[in-house]
Amino acid sequence: MSMAMNDSFDHIGEVLRNAETIAIAGHVRPDGDAIGSIVALGHSLMLAGKKVRILSEDKVPLNLAFLPEVGLVEQPPESIENLDVAVALDTAVKDRLGDNVNRVFAGAKVLVNMDHHGTNPRYGHLNYIEMTSPATGQIIFDFLKSQGLPMDAVVRDHLYTAISTDTGSFQFSSTTAHTHRIIAEMMEAGSQFWELCQKLYNTFPLRRLLLQKALLNEMKLSAGNRIASWAMSHELQSEIGTQPGDTEGLIDMLRGIDGVISPVIFEEMADGRVRVSVRSKDERLDVSKVCLVFGGGGHRMASGARMAGPLAVAEQRFLEALEDEIKRIG
Amino acid sequence: MSMAMNDSFDHIGEVLRNAETIAIAGHVRPDGDAIGSIVALGHSLMLAGKKVRILSEDKVPLNLAFLPEVGLVEQPPESIENLDVAVALDTAVKDRLGDNVNRVFAGAKVLVNMDHHGTNPRYGHLNYIEMTSPATGQIIFDFLKSQGLPMDAVVRDHLYTAISTDTGSFQFSSTTAHTHRIIAEMMEAGSQFWELCQKLYNTFPLRRLLLQKALLNEMKLSAGNRIASWAMSHELQSEIGTQPGDTEGLIDMLRGIDGVISPVIFEEMADGRVRVSVRSKDERLDVSKVCLVFGGGGHRMASGARMAGPLAVAEQRFLEALEDEIKRIG
Ligand SMILES: [Mn+2]
Ligand SMILES: [Mn+2]
Repeated sequence: MSMAMNDSFDHIGEVLRNAETIAIAGHVRPDGDAIGSIVALGHSLMLAGKKVRILSEDKVPLNLAFLPEVGLVEQPPESIENLDVAVALDTAVKDRLGDNVNRVFAGAKVLVNMDHHGTNPRYGHLNYIEMTSPATGQIIFDFLKSQGLPMDAVVRDHLYTAISTDTGSFQFSSTTAHTHRIIAEMMEAGSQFWELCQKLYNTFPLRRLLLQKALLNEMKLSAGNRIASWAMSHELQSEIGTQPGDTEGLIDMLRGIDGVISPVIFEEMADGRVRVSVRSKDERLDVSKVCLVFGGGGHRMASGARMAGPLAVAEQRFLEALEDEIKRIG
Repeated sequence: MSMAMNDSFDHIGEVLRNAETIAIAGHVRPDGDAIGSIVALGHSLMLAGKKVRILSEDKVPLNLAFLPEVGLVEQPPESIENLDVAVALDTAVKDRLGDNVNRVFAGAKVLVNMDHHGTNPRYGHLNYIEMTSPATGQIIFDFLKSQGLPMDAVVRDHLYTAISTDTGSFQFSSTTAHTHRIIAEMMEAGSQFWELCQKLYNTFPLRRLLLQKALLNEMKLSAGNRIASWAMSHELQSEIGTQPGDTEGLIDMLRGIDGVISPVIFEEMADGRVRVSVRSKDERLDVSKVCLVFGGGGHRMASGARMAGPLAVAEQRFLEALEDEIKRIG
């Protein structure tokens, strides 16, 4: 089989139908697409009578803890007896499943790999990689439908969560006409998603506002207002009691400012090192080049690096390099 | 004809086809649905060869000024010669067209009224009121399609803007399966909406962040953290140079806080009076009752009032009344 070919939904469906015990997992530090995809597929296969274990190396983040049947997600056991099939979802490289999930998955007879990251090296025995899909959840919808697998309200809520979060509520360029038709179909099947949206997008802990407040009070504009940056100290995070997920999307507050072409957040970690996240809004500015200088990397428009502290020094060194790069493009 | 019956799209279409000169307007202080609907219908009728004037009592807000062909929107002239048909869109009561628009519209032979507000008293000669539609833009899509009227990229961008803004990017409970199918159809016709979304949702003036910063620094929690409120002084607004649209949605920052059931914003106006906006997140709390005490009103879950200043006194009086009402529900 060619490395670039997808196995068919029918083939993957057959393997799952023939299995008795199935384990499913997504990537470490799971997001809405990872949790939504593993619970949707897992719950559907349970309804179809399979013994299913839904695993996640890291806990379900607090902002997704309200989702129905999300209690099915468990941290990996030592091993699972008679594991017929392991399914990796939304996980671009095998390592990102996490060590404990990989240990369990090593005992499976077959590994299925379904994902929408174009860089996925097809590490499964069976692979379905579709990079034109904005979310793994969209692939799972198509798969369940093609195989006539059960899609109840719980499955639909998780598919919606997967698709909606990975498309920024249908705003990202990855959104397709098919994406909207899937949502229409799930609504016609009886789902309403507004309460889910309220909880996903319009409910947050006070901690989140305290972080935003610190960002707004401490942010700096430089390079003629083309860079907007914030250095988030570890002390602040301790004071606020920051939880995983709290800082997600904070960079968008800087990103959205009219005239800013490069927002940056410096996050001081517990060990004193500094995690840098940087974005570009200008096709000519390649922020991965700046990150490369500090041993990081990523994409042209979104990159990161980890630098030695102290925070203020890392901030200054990185901003100088970024400013030079901005001057270079004119 | 019964007051509760809609005139058919065919009837309205016939009237427009038979017209030579048509004027179209939405409500004062126009939002995305108003601008999107009037430009979409107006541009389509222009493509169909009609003389069309697209009017708005108030200017297009800055956050919508990037929209294609939005320069077609003009402030009302003294009158329009030989005006055959006037079309009011997204305007629940005739007064809300504005005095100058109403003066122009008074010269029209026929007034058409298309809207999605259930309370619309059907003030047109021809009326099409569909309260199950989440946006007037959704009605306009169905109308144009049913009548085979032109729908080019400009029309589609405006319909998307109308529908997306009035549904909170497809998150509100008013969103229907049909809504998603319309977006799918417009994408299949060749539109991509991500750049539009970037400009609509992820671009804002620095002023906006300065307002958010003031809100976060000055907000107060009361009633056991069930009320989150902010008093926005006129001085602050002058300092920042607030423009129409800048304050829109600020209340959602308070609304989203976990545990808060009633967010309130007090806005000191130029004349010293205070505009109160209040929301309820708890079905048992009817905020319109509290507003009624101060001569205001609205809906159970979203109300407003205008109070005498000074700001601090209005704030205290209103919060006391709101707290009493919250205690009453327990
Ligand atoms: Mn994904
Ligand atoms: Mn509307």
